[in-house]
Amino acid sequence: MTTSNRVGDYLIEQLCGHGVEHIFGVPGDYVLTFFDLMARHEKIRLINTCDEQGAGFAADAYARMRGLGVVCVTYGVGGLKIANTTAQAYAEKSPVVVISGAPGMEERHDNPLLHHKVKDFETQLRVFQEFTVASASLENPATALQEIDRVIHAALRYKRPVYLELPRDMVLRQGPVHYTHSPDSEKSDPESLARALAEATAFINEAKRPVILAGVEIQRFGLQDQLLNFAQKTGIPVASTILGKSVVSETHPLYLGIYEGATGIDAIREYVESSDGLIILGAFMTDINLGIYTATIDPQRSIYAMSEGVSIEGHDCGALLFEDFIHGLGDAPIRPRVPGPLPQRVAPEVFPAGNGGDPITVKRLFERLNSFLTPDTVVIADVGDALFGANDLLIHGATEFLSPAYYASLGFAVPAAIGVQMAKPETRPLVLTGDGAFQMTGMELSTVALFGLNPIIIVLNNKGYSTERPMLDGSFNDIHPWNFSRIPDILGAGRGFHVTTEAELDRALVEAEAYTEGFVIIDVSIDRDDRSPALLRLTESLGKRVTR
Amino acid sequence: MTTSNRVGDYLIEQLCGHGVEHIFGVPGDYVLTFFDLMARHEKIRLINTCDEQGAGFAADAYARMRGLGVVCVTYGVGGLKIANTTAQAYAEKSPVVVISGAPGMEERHDNPLLHHKVKDFETQLRVFQEFTVASASLENPATALQEIDRVIHAALRYKRPVYLELPRDMVLRQGPVHYTHSPDSEKSDPESLARALAEATAFINEAKRPVILAGVEIQRFGLQDQLLNFAQKTGIPVASTILGKSVVSETHPLYLGIYEGATGIDAIREYVESSDGLIILGAFMTDINLGIYTATIDPQRSIYAMSEGVSIEGHDCGALLFEDFIHGLGDAPIRPRVPGPLPQRVAPEVFPAGNGGDPITVKRLFERLNSFLTPDTVVIADVGDALFGANDLLIHGATEFLSPAYYASLGFAVPAAIGVQMAKPETRPLVLTGDGAFQMTGMELSTVALFGLNPIIIVLNNKGYSTERPMLDGSFNDIHPWNFSRIPDILGAGRGFHVTTEAELDRALVEAEAYTEGFVIIDVSIDRDDRSPALLRLTESLGKRVTR
Repeated sequence: MTTSNRVGDYLIEQLCGHGVEHIFGVPGDYVLTFFDLMARHEKIRLINTCDEQGAGFAADAYARMRGLGVVCVTYGVGGLKIANTTAQAYAEKSPVVVISGAPGMEERHDNPLLHHKVKDFETQLRVFQEFTVASASLENPATALQEIDRVIHAALRYKRPVYLELPRDMVLRQGPVHYTHSPDSEKSDPESLARALAEATAFINEAKRPVILAGVEIQRFGLQDQLLNFAQKTGIPVASTILGKSVVSETHPLYLGIYEGATGIDAIREYVESSDGLIILGAFMTDINLGIYTATIDPQRSIYAMSEGVSIEGHDCGALLFEDFIHGLGDAPIRPRVPGPLPQRVAPEVFPAGNGGDPITVKRLFERLNSFLTPDTVVIADVGDALFGANDLLIHGATEFLSPAYYASLGFAVPAAIGVQMAKPETRPLVLTGDGAFQMTGMELSTVALFGLNPIIIVLNNKGYSTERPMLDGSFNDIHPWNFSRIPDILGAGRGFHVTTEAELDRALVEAEAYTEGFVIIDVSIDRDDRSPALLRLTESLGKRVTR
Repeated sequence: MTTSNRVGDYLIEQLCGHGVEHIFGVPGDYVLTFFDLMARHEKIRLINTCDEQGAGFAADAYARMRGLGVVCVTYGVGGLKIANTTAQAYAEKSPVVVISGAPGMEERHDNPLLHHKVKDFETQLRVFQEFTVASASLENPATALQEIDRVIHAALRYKRPVYLELPRDMVLRQGPVHYTHSPDSEKSDPESLARALAEATAFINEAKRPVILAGVEIQRFGLQDQLLNFAQKTGIPVASTILGKSVVSETHPLYLGIYEGATGIDAIREYVESSDGLIILGAFMTDINLGIYTATIDPQRSIYAMSEGVSIEGHDCGALLFEDFIHGLGDAPIRPRVPGPLPQRVAPEVFPAGNGGDPITVKRLFERLNSFLTPDTVVIADVGDALFGANDLLIHGATEFLSPAYYASLGFAVPAAIGVQMAKPETRPLVLTGDGAFQMTGMELSTVALFGLNPIIIVLNNKGYSTERPMLDGSFNDIHPWNFSRIPDILGAGRGFHVTTEAELDRALVEAEAYTEGFVIIDVSIDRDDRSPALLRLTESLGKRVTR
């Protein structure tokens, strides 16, 4: 219990209690009182971005790394700018708390046309109900603290965004003085859990060649160690979806690689699809994730565990928590086995340093980046060949790869780097982005400079929307060229490089490694028609659905 | 009737038929087929912006200039990025047609997790229903053409945005072959109209000192000439709201100035508020528009004509069209009069060229800009002191001032310049923006460069959110400084100037006038605590509502 239990104070305390130390946003008059309160709080650091969109993406990335992220904006002109970033957090299960200021209750009388207002005072709330799992407008101090608890709990329970609207005259209002937070007590039904684990054990023990297909929910629930323990104890190999990439260290001997139907590598596909005991753990069944419907796995004949529920061979296992089931698997009497030969993984080619003036290609770029990664690198890939090419990167640690691989919103990566480095100051993000995606949100490097962060940004500069060209090309896929390497001149911070050859790329990366005082942006000139093999396969599948 | 009546073709033909020649957007796979169709159409020019937000603002500005604007984006990641720009168009009555691609009907079976999808296939439609006056998902070719007509008609009737969702496999589907567009036939009820005009005539003729308060709907419905005719015939002076600024030429002898309660100039306020015959024509009763509730006019004791209806002294006049009422006033037997002395307008001071090294101030900047305006200038003001300072600009023509003065979304001005110059190629926009607003969307200068436009951008660089500082200051109002004048280095186009003194400003403006091949950006260094008198008055009113 805080001394005062004012609505604003209580909200901040609860966020802090769940590990939040940074809040992203842009101030505006309807939220100024709350900004001031946050700014004065010793445990909170306010990160104001150039545009609300940047704050939304940064909070999403922070949530993926830390388990909870917060974005705080003003009413209307702030809130509605992050509809898209919140929808992404919903689609990809990222627990983001959206806080929006709002006109005071006192000033709403007679429904006046207050600035920033759209239709009525519930418009924004209704919009956010479309892509949040819980929401509240904190209009009554008597119930506000309870509402805050309910809403934050939902974000943590479902790993999805929630929405809190805070009228500006409620921020300093006193809530019930004796109200205290009661920790969540949701539990699995013990009988259902025991039965499910017994069934799962039997299913796995009967299988000749079980395989784990692990997805992003393992990361969202912080279960990477439990997954690894389960795999190691039982000797069952692990494939991951692209959204779940890096769910286990990609250098682990039991790691198979990315499974994504026909888009992926054939040997991995065959190994997974021919398994007689598929264990799907927290993996979304989405189109890009599964190679645009070319996947032929069947959740109805598998163990299929998600936060929404667990099913085994098609029947529902009842009231189970996802995390209890994963924990339970580690202790279940599953017989250990020695896996047979796994598909041969192609070791990344060693990039010969300084081999001269060959123009750089996407393939060679990723080969070079492979040797650049360290256990402290977090790779953040934007949508496009930045993401598909990154398939071939070997991620060392766990949870060290971030990308909007399902919702696929361009412009995530640069703002995400802000969220990642705030969440994990010991890491240095490596950001992979296309030129088109950079033009959407890349100037958030301004925020990077404001807070002294030092990500390395690789711009795959192929002069337009190259993911779309193979589907259907036209001048609408062309964009205006930027001298990306000159951005440090605008910001008075960072260093820029423009590279066209392998040797230049190599030199730029060496210098980037040495320069840690600020961000580095490397503009990598790539031929307009060059693309990674994974992207070629993907766009061929997608192109069949676009008609000219 | 087109030869084919395919859904996509019909939609394009209807837009062209209403004067649309430019469509703003960003392509994506769910909308590629339609982009291709538009690109091949001889009357349509596709304007692809850096980010969807830019396209949304550009289409809004185009709609304000041309009477209809169109923004076209992909599903989810495109559509939800323009929630805010569409909400602005709704709040400020700008007729924008939002077209979003969507997954094909064929590929929706079994509700698969297609990329860019949020919750269900109706999520985005429901969101847009919150800030549009009509919407349709064109899922059935048999009804699609009718739906297109219905929805576009609503945009024109209510001057507000509408939403069309176009599944990608419907673009080339044949609609009813013999369907043709039937022009709208909505009319005023003749009796109601005659009665209303008779009442209005009596009300005005009885008044000793009638005043017209004209607002933005006069511009939206293209009634500037009718308003001027009415004022000149009757000798009734005209004040305008800030949202309606430039509704009549501000150099006209009957023009009073901007009325905005205590925020505005006292003499104008007194003149308007003491009138015994107030004629409110198309003016929103909003907070900023009316000086944050300090206005003391009463629509219940006035003629109050809006597109939603007309009332006289508080009683509703029935089924009238706004435009018929305004036309009718011009022909009504209202007695002409010679207005008494009007409030003395302060003539803009002549800016002495080259008076040396005095640091530039907001006041002096606007004085200098006053002498820079020509009848071909369109002034676009972003929110902040760019808008409030612009109060003191004298706009020569009609409809030559654009600003989101009610909804107040930062970042409108630079993208709006694209829309304005496409809509009126003979004009050269003068864009006034703060440093904070520029950091949100200013890099759309890339689109300006791509299409060879030449606006002049004035950045009022006062190192942060200076509108908020007088309300409640903190480090959250500080932003990272940009060398705005170096942006031409990034884009390989345009010219940049950084000015700190009056003489430098003067030189930069002279050079800007002479350089017409591309955009000009002038970074005007202003003291952190300098602001226009209008902004000081406004933020004092607003600050009383923010509590620390």
